[in-house]
Amino acid sequence: MKRIDLNCDMGESFGPWRMGADADVMPWITSANVACGFHAGDPSIMRETVAAAVAAGVAIGAHVGLPDLAGFGRRAMALDVQQAYDITVAQIGALAAVARTQGAQLTHMKPHGALYHMVERDAELADALARAVRDVDAGMRLVGRSGGQLVAHGRQLGLTVTHEVFADRRYRPDGQLVPRGEPHAVIEDAQAAASQAVRLACDAAVEADDGSVLTLRADSICVHGDRTHAAAFARGMHERLREAGVVLRQPGA
Amino acid sequence: MKRIDLNCDMGESFGPWRMGADADVMPWITSANVACGFHAGDPSIMRETVAAAVAAGVAIGAHVGLPDLAGFGRRAMALDVQQAYDITVAQIGALAAVARTQGAQLTHMKPHGALYHMVERDAELADALARAVRDVDAGMRLVGRSGGQLVAHGRQLGLTVTHEVFADRRYRPDGQLVPRGEPHAVIEDAQAAASQAVRLACDAAVEADDGSVLTLRADSICVHGDRTHAAAFARGMHERLREAGVVLRQPGA
Amino acid sequence: MKRIDLNCDMGESFGPWRMGADADVMPWITSANVACGFHAGDPSIMRETVAAAVAAGVAIGAHVGLPDLAGFGRRAMALDVQQAYDITVAQIGALAAVARTQGAQLTHMKPHGALYHMVERDAELADALARAVRDVDAGMRLVGRSGGQLVAHGRQLGLTVTHEVFADRRYRPDGQLVPRGEPHAVIEDAQAAASQAVRLACDAAVEADDGSVLTLRADSICVHGDRTHAAAFARGMHERLREAGVVLRQPGA
Amino acid sequence: MKRIDLNCDMGESFGPWRMGADADVMPWITSANVACGFHAGDPSIMRETVAAAVAAGVAIGAHVGLPDLAGFGRRAMALDVQQAYDITVAQIGALAAVARTQGAQLTHMKPHGALYHMVERDAELADALARAVRDVDAGMRLVGRSGGQLVAHGRQLGLTVTHEVFADRRYRPDGQLVPRGEPHAVIEDAQAAASQAVRLACDAAVEADDGSVLTLRADSICVHGDRTHAAAFARGMHERLREAGVVLRQPGA
Repeated sequence: MKRIDLNCDMGESFGPWRMGADADVMPWITSANVACGFHAGDPSIMRETVAAAVAAGVAIGAHVGLPDLAGFGRRAMALDVQQAYDITVAQIGALAAVARTQGAQLTHMKPHGALYHMVERDAELADALARAVRDVDAGMRLVGRSGGQLVAHGRQLGLTVTHEVFADRRYRPDGQLVPRGEPHAVIEDAQAAASQAVRLACDAAVEADDGSVLTLRADSICVHGDRTHAAAFARGMHERLREAGVVLRQPGA
Repeated sequence: MKRIDLNCDMGESFGPWRMGADADVMPWITSANVACGFHAGDPSIMRETVAAAVAAGVAIGAHVGLPDLAGFGRRAMALDVQQAYDITVAQIGALAAVARTQGAQLTHMKPHGALYHMVERDAELADALARAVRDVDAGMRLVGRSGGQLVAHGRQLGLTVTHEVFADRRYRPDGQLVPRGEPHAVIEDAQAAASQAVRLACDAAVEADDGSVLTLRADSICVHGDRTHAAAFARGMHERLREAGVVLRQPGA
Repeated sequence: MKRIDLNCDMGESFGPWRMGADADVMPWITSANVACGFHAGDPSIMRETVAAAVAAGVAIGAHVGLPDLAGFGRRAMALDVQQAYDITVAQIGALAAVARTQGAQLTHMKPHGALYHMVERDAELADALARAVRDVDAGMRLVGRSGGQLVAHGRQLGLTVTHEVFADRRYRPDGQLVPRGEPHAVIEDAQAAASQAVRLACDAAVEADDGSVLTLRADSICVHGDRTHAAAFARGMHERLREAGVVLRQPGA
Repeated sequence: MKRIDLNCDMGESFGPWRMGADADVMPWITSANVACGFHAGDPSIMRETVAAAVAAGVAIGAHVGLPDLAGFGRRAMALDVQQAYDITVAQIGALAAVARTQGAQLTHMKPHGALYHMVERDAELADALARAVRDVDAGMRLVGRSGGQLVAHGRQLGLTVTHEVFADRRYRPDGQLVPRGEPHAVIEDAQAAASQAVRLACDAAVEADDGSVLTLRADSICVHGDRTHAAAFARGMHERLREAGVVLRQPGA
């Protein structure tokens, strides 16, 4: 029986400012990556988001970001390795305590925005984030780009890892994503994205942008909560996957 | 056998900015209240401070403050009750995770600066902070002004509490501190402060500013790490207490 | 010929987070109070907002707020007088420089949120803000509650002042607003608000909540950009005022 | 008659945290680069620093930094060009207003920390900062590395520029500084640094680390306020320069 996780970034509001469509997306996903107050989120929004995930039976993970609220964690920063470790520990801890007050436990950690990409380019950063997860709670899963450096470092440290794939992004034959700046980087058509999701879940395969077929491990599909019609998009993917006989469930559950 | 705890605020540096004399004070105290990044501290300083406390055998607590770095948490803010609860949870959690990476556990929570006083004036705030501690880790002690509202709410919720007293501040006959603005509010003389510490530890008593003798429960004495010659001051108090046969030890240990 | 100003808070987005409906409201107002990065806004949003105001021929003022982004400047803070002066100077200056790069000059300063109310309760704060305006640019107008303490202090210092009134809030007979917590504090009906606006502009009068008629100077009407259907509300008020023969123009122009 | 400027970064405290030895260094310099609240400084510290510079007859410039307080503006960030322009405008403006309240005017802008180096590597960033200065106040001087890209872009835009050199850093034959990580990057000996200062001021020359002599324009020497014995160091340089007949004066004065 094929199974897959649908994860989405959540809790990205801040103070009085709203972002995303959390309530509408929540029914269609199985894992929520919750912002921890560094690139987005604040203690009250963290609590509200965790409570909503608990109510929906959605797994809760820490979405760890750079200390750059104004830039929403999307501007690469020359953080040193120790700082990367330290901010990861603190963010996981803050969200873990919030989860405890809601009767929940964290299941995973996924880096956000620029940090997600920085760990793929810098092995020491990848190691730092993996160590942070291991040192805080070795039972948490580490989520990173399928086949990438973060999950590799996580495995080396004995963590269970989640290989993440994208249904609405095009891949290069080498497994890299087509960078956002380029044409066709994003799959705008909901049906095409749902089809890519099904193929990823059922065959661990995707057609690369040169027409070749790429094999890659697919434990979880990223649902972009900030795209237009995010909820409809998530729902479409969810329904197509179920029609294809895929069980939607968080990894390890 | 008489015993008492000496607690001091620690980890109040931020980024490249230093504050306090943590390394010099650490040998003379038994509990460290560590800033959690809201009014002071950052994830790296939290780790360094926790590591130093572990090395010194000093108990580690969360020093929870207002979200006001520029004001160092000393400016009262009209936080609502839910926000007070939420920031307390997040701060305890962040420090607890840091402690876990250093092989330590948090023993207590003490509010910082304006928040310390706000909970004594506003019963709902006191209740919010006590609930936050209970919900995150009911085994943590709640530290507040001796005989005050915070410890009262903590006890109501079933928490163990630490009644805090001051060796270098003068008391009113009603148990209130003489406000800092007034003359003689602070006991500048190290010998006089040490004497007040000994009397608090041995007799649970202090001479009020009208000459009357005030009885108050004394579980822990606050050592002000930001006063001039803080380390010498802490050392003097430490030595005088030991000479008087008082055992210096964190509560509950 | 009767004339009045319609002012609205603008530029309250931050980083990637949007707030308000600036583009839709801009055509119907004559003065924009632009957030300066302390309670909302950032340098890029300040530039965009100023550029939009310049394009619309709308007067630009500094909307000075408390240093509390997470609380959107709506939580009262125990700022001392010197700090209040200093943050006002810095905020006006930052926006003034942005305005200069867009070929514009600031015309006024209006405090935001909790600070707006704090200056009415604390004469020293009112004086501090008025001095800050005078010291940075004595040609700027000071905007405050009609008949209130801020405009009084501004006049004492020789500033020109703008008495602000509210079309969608109910007044007490003593000229105070009915506090937001109370029923009927806000006038939800657009027609009723427009009628109150016309009466304020034409007769400098408003019916208080006890039915008595209150006389108060009305130089500018506050348009709440964060209310539901803010643009339609602003447009309705604008059109009703013009039908009543009132000229809509910023003060002093 | 030879003349040179001695500039030093000032006002790098924040809230309750002190940094530097401003009061001790001020008598020996001719230009102060004042932090503007993004990487360091706050509105109150800006005012105090400007007032001290006015009292000492020292020229006041905006020290513009990255929006990264925790990292003190020393971590490179992937700011886009428009953001770089915008934060420069806002920072200059904030300090300019503070200066106006103290009866002073800004004379120059110098980027801080990582931004100082980023503009030398990225021509569009250099252009953005130069445009920001021109658009806010074309009479301000632009300070950058001698012979570097920032001053080149400043001149192209018609600004007067200040070529900055270092007395306590070693140079490569190509005019680059030996990076801080390498041995001998910093000249620790005060006499040797003073000698380099004199040669720079008198001959516009410096001995590179391969023994060759490098010629470079020297309008201003940077005094590092954060080095050990900064004040003694500044005083020594000041006195040696005067003994050599060099007039110490801000550029353009």
